[in-house]
Amino acid sequence: MLIVMKTDATESEIDHVVSIVNELGLRAHTMPGATRTAIGITGNQGAVDVTRFENLPGVAEAIRVSKPYKLITLDLRPDKTVVRIGDATIGGDELAIIAGPCAIESRAQAFAIAESVRRSGVRFFRGGAFKPRTSPYAFQGLGEEGLKILAEVREAYGLKIVTEALDEAGVDLVERYGDMIQIGARNMQNFSLLRRAGRSRLPVLLKRGLAATLDEWLLAAEYIMAEGNYNVVLCERGVRTFAQHTRNTLDLAAIPAVRRISHLPVVVDPSHGTGKNHMVIPLARAGVAVGADGLIIEVHDQPERALSDGAQALTLEQYDQLVQEVRAIHEVITPATVG
Amino acid sequence: MLIVMKTDATESEIDHVVSIVNELGLRAHTMPGATRTAIGITGNQGAVDVTRFENLPGVAEAIRVSKPYKLITLDLRPDKTVVRIGDATIGGDELAIIAGPCAIESRAQAFAIAESVRRSGVRFFRGGAFKPRTSPYAFQGLGEEGLKILAEVREAYGLKIVTEALDEAGVDLVERYGDMIQIGARNMQNFSLLRRAGRSRLPVLLKRGLAATLDEWLLAAEYIMAEGNYNVVLCERGVRTFAQHTRNTLDLAAIPAVRRISHLPVVVDPSHGTGKNHMVIPLARAGVAVGADGLIIEVHDQPERALSDGAQALTLEQYDQLVQEVRAIHEVITPATVG
Amino acid sequence: MLIVMKTDATESEIDHVVSIVNELGLRAHTMPGATRTAIGITGNQGAVDVTRFENLPGVAEAIRVSKPYKLITLDLRPDKTVVRIGDATIGGDELAIIAGPCAIESRAQAFAIAESVRRSGVRFFRGGAFKPRTSPYAFQGLGEEGLKILAEVREAYGLKIVTEALDEAGVDLVERYGDMIQIGARNMQNFSLLRRAGRSRLPVLLKRGLAATLDEWLLAAEYIMAEGNYNVVLCERGVRTFAQHTRNTLDLAAIPAVRRISHLPVVVDPSHGTGKNHMVIPLARAGVAVGADGLIIEVHDQPERALSDGAQALTLEQYDQLVQEVRAIHEVITPATVG
Amino acid sequence: MLIVMKTDATESEIDHVVSIVNELGLRAHTMPGATRTAIGITGNQGAVDVTRFENLPGVAEAIRVSKPYKLITLDLRPDKTVVRIGDATIGGDELAIIAGPCAIESRAQAFAIAESVRRSGVRFFRGGAFKPRTSPYAFQGLGEEGLKILAEVREAYGLKIVTEALDEAGVDLVERYGDMIQIGARNMQNFSLLRRAGRSRLPVLLKRGLAATLDEWLLAAEYIMAEGNYNVVLCERGVRTFAQHTRNTLDLAAIPAVRRISHLPVVVDPSHGTGKNHMVIPLARAGVAVGADGLIIEVHDQPERALSDGAQALTLEQYDQLVQEVRAIHEVITPATVG
Repeated sequence: MLIVMKTDATESEIDHVVSIVNELGLRAHTMPGATRTAIGITGNQGAVDVTRFENLPGVAEAIRVSKPYKLITLDLRPDKTVVRIGDATIGGDELAIIAGPCAIESRAQAFAIAESVRRSGVRFFRGGAFKPRTSPYAFQGLGEEGLKILAEVREAYGLKIVTEALDEAGVDLVERYGDMIQIGARNMQNFSLLRRAGRSRLPVLLKRGLAATLDEWLLAAEYIMAEGNYNVVLCERGVRTFAQHTRNTLDLAAIPAVRRISHLPVVVDPSHGTGKNHMVIPLARAGVAVGADGLIIEVHDQPERALSDGAQALTLEQYDQLVQEVRAIHEVITPATVG
Repeated sequence: MLIVMKTDATESEIDHVVSIVNELGLRAHTMPGATRTAIGITGNQGAVDVTRFENLPGVAEAIRVSKPYKLITLDLRPDKTVVRIGDATIGGDELAIIAGPCAIESRAQAFAIAESVRRSGVRFFRGGAFKPRTSPYAFQGLGEEGLKILAEVREAYGLKIVTEALDEAGVDLVERYGDMIQIGARNMQNFSLLRRAGRSRLPVLLKRGLAATLDEWLLAAEYIMAEGNYNVVLCERGVRTFAQHTRNTLDLAAIPAVRRISHLPVVVDPSHGTGKNHMVIPLARAGVAVGADGLIIEVHDQPERALSDGAQALTLEQYDQLVQEVRAIHEVITPATVG
Repeated sequence: MLIVMKTDATESEIDHVVSIVNELGLRAHTMPGATRTAIGITGNQGAVDVTRFENLPGVAEAIRVSKPYKLITLDLRPDKTVVRIGDATIGGDELAIIAGPCAIESRAQAFAIAESVRRSGVRFFRGGAFKPRTSPYAFQGLGEEGLKILAEVREAYGLKIVTEALDEAGVDLVERYGDMIQIGARNMQNFSLLRRAGRSRLPVLLKRGLAATLDEWLLAAEYIMAEGNYNVVLCERGVRTFAQHTRNTLDLAAIPAVRRISHLPVVVDPSHGTGKNHMVIPLARAGVAVGADGLIIEVHDQPERALSDGAQALTLEQYDQLVQEVRAIHEVITPATVG
Repeated sequence: MLIVMKTDATESEIDHVVSIVNELGLRAHTMPGATRTAIGITGNQGAVDVTRFENLPGVAEAIRVSKPYKLITLDLRPDKTVVRIGDATIGGDELAIIAGPCAIESRAQAFAIAESVRRSGVRFFRGGAFKPRTSPYAFQGLGEEGLKILAEVREAYGLKIVTEALDEAGVDLVERYGDMIQIGARNMQNFSLLRRAGRSRLPVLLKRGLAATLDEWLLAAEYIMAEGNYNVVLCERGVRTFAQHTRNTLDLAAIPAVRRISHLPVVVDPSHGTGKNHMVIPLARAGVAVGADGLIIEVHDQPERALSDGAQALTLEQYDQLVQEVRAIHEVITPATVG
């Protein structure tokens, strides 16, 4: 931490700051400058609120320097995490694609889509049984019935099931029927849910919150890992900005930003990240080109009749085109990103 | 809803849209224009996804017109809701002030602050027992122990207790010890928690999410009310923007915006809304001047030693000054806002 | 400035950073910490790009500490600036109100509105002759003809004229006909225009840009002052955020934020700051309550026929109500903000 | 336009709206609905302010439907514009790369970089002679001296010169020495500058403003085209959001969004779009993969000694790597984006 004193701070104000630093068991380094004094603080500052110093007399600003996370860092684990789900991986050499409908609507719908997903050689199937809907009057998902359909899909096609849990009871159910727990953007700081997922044996797909900073997102992963579950995959799915030509603004710079700090794999969701059918393929290509470990894609056999998010779902034909295009790019950039 | 066709849309594309509208049990009104045709849709559109039409051939844009909420609206209930907690009210003529520390840290701390709050004539005491912290390594609150201290404060000073629940189990506990359930910004779209609060006999203080639109915030209230609990108070606490001179950007225009649509009371949180001690009093004045029903304020007997959010807590002296100033403004504007 | 080294930075990487610091004529203060070393830098850093250090080997982060402005600061001038325009002031004890139409549309319109403004006792009249319109096909203002009407208004009513200049030639014209040069939000970083205004004898009303940070806004004022014109009034007019219930999000915390750093007066524009007629009076009250030195308000004798921004213009009756309400609040808070 | 009436609007309020619509020479289509009436408006609405209807009695909302631009649209010109500068093109089959330093600092620096750019087979050289700097005390560019160096670079290497004009006088100079006028993000709504560029014979590179919506950006291009200059290239360079891990948030979805509406070419600036050296190559790959017509890249022979924006400049080695990687992606996706 760095405390910047005002230009007219007195000696005794500086001494007062130093004494509070010492009182907290930390070490103060006073640096007199041309116009003002700064005080560097070293020592373990884990529990210190950076801003509390700002109201002390003579203080102009307090700046946090150390990052508050540990388990997610490359400092702790220099090699990238590879999450293994049966014989499939996320974070390894293969491009991981997770595809399926926004919501499971019926057995027929799920099987029609899973058939295409399987045929494309993709390993993961997504589909919501519990849907977090903005309105209480919108379709909320089939619940456990939907999870049973997902379990049948797994049985029939050998696909790994990625599905969302909205609360702790939901995690129990996903553990029974699924392969990977999705935590949605709206729940990224639902700390009870994060802790429960941290005690699960299943890997977790952690979506970035609508207005989450990089630090907040990584600390949400830290919550899961602090409970013992190290199999976390991050998912960039767009953030909320002033822009109105998309539902969210897909922040692809988050991928190199994560890479620089963390060993966790990170995938991109161009479906929620744009909310527009015609943008999904271009942004999927961009997500792979930027170096993501995979994609999560919404696809529907009849998008115009989907019960939720129909506007962004790909048709089965568009989906096939996407898989082909992103694999071509993945092949081209592999030496670049690995090398 | 309004469907705008492309300039080169064919007759058969227009007919196709009309037939899908009819299929959904709605009515289509075709309006040929100078350069393009628009199709107005009337009928109950509650469950219709506005964007699904955007991918039909010939469609340029689909625009939602009807608002998706019901119970929160002035259409349903033209008179403002007054939430009663014992002999205290929020939404009535009196300015409702909720004051106390960010987190309950000890019995001594809580009582020292409650003493001042009581003396100021304010009716509500706040204090967190369960703290939603960005980092898993930060102080997480005293838990049930903190709630017991709050119950003692109520006993000793007759203050009404407002405290946060982070999950469904937390609501059980707040029901045992407190008077009003606070739902925090990070949980504004934790729909399981909203539904649980909707089944409580206690009123709910619903904070706006960090990136919540007005509609999303009002629909979160709708979730609570749809379960039968009509005693909801909205709380504007700042939103996340690019601005860095405050922790959040306090959006005071949200107060007249809520007023125009909803009968629910709305209060302002200038403490989280700014995150800076020196801004709390000016923004509290502004919150009352804009016409809010009340304020929620963080105050601490020793802010520089607070275990959380010390930078924004008022001292006891500053708190007394705030109460005095905002009451003077409330008196001046009352005829204006009522008249 | 503070350079934070990586945890695995070598001694020679640290020495390399120190040598570059020295090469730039600055002083390095090395602070070894528990897990990493930080290097504080002191000396005049005016022209040093803070981020250039970030790509040096072993560097984790570079943090700017010193603020880049001088003339606008309280350090330089501890007393608040009072801008004098004839016998009227902005920044003094009196609440400064600037009122008038968005655009001058005709002599009749300007005089009808000025009549009301004069009668209310307000001292400043606004009205655009050159309008910065998003579309090239929208009404662009009457040009010099509009300025002549403004000069007549001044003659007839003794009001001081505040009007916008869009470019350097526009400043020449405003100097001929007006009393104060307005620089609009879209031009806040039009540095050629700022410099020209800095060489004018007229005071400048500098609106905050749509996405301007506090620092950028203050540095825009610094551009004007660096040319010798010290009569600058800042104007908060709302920033662009994700929120859609207003045209812009009025950031009232900017007022105490400016006060803490700068001696320049600051006024609030609740008309552009909300873009909605029904919000202008509440937010004007809030602007005065937060401690602004004044307001700039759009008023029209026939808002529903205005050629621009009709949705936010007050009627003459609403305007009278606004003046009455904000004066009452100004009276109440004066001891508070002065004392 | 669509006017939505309140649920309790009276017949006479509806009639009043219809009469105002007629008075404006437009046609009203009344649509009675289940709970409220909507009024569709057709006819040429070019100059009508959409929001003016919102304050009429009984009106709940006014929604704009028609888009306000003409010349930039695919409706007007279904084939993509190819901008030709001598024998080089932007918008054609070839990937257009514009590379060079942020600012021209000296003849030696410019030539060292141009040598590398030429060798890579890239056709466009960038370099600022007039720099729009946030602080008046930062390096402002070499001025005309810098333009002369650029002209020498053109002479020596046959590269086309792209350089920024900050004001109308600057356009005169760029016309004398350069090949393409760059209009920066801060000047995107400097309408005097846009009009001057619209009267130039040189093509224009129009950067998106820091907080510009898609419509505002396209309308800025419309300003240039309305003066007769049809050779406009759009440039996405990142927008301002809450995110702090990058200088700006690069909004790659803007590329398919532009494509859907406009025939103008669009390029991506990953240097300003991220502000971080280590992100430039990944985001350049993403920009090409998303389907942009080209890139604009900052490269420097000694980034750690650059007088501006050193943190984002690529070294000459990194630049070569970038060119190689993006060309490989461009080759792979060409059939996809064309087909």
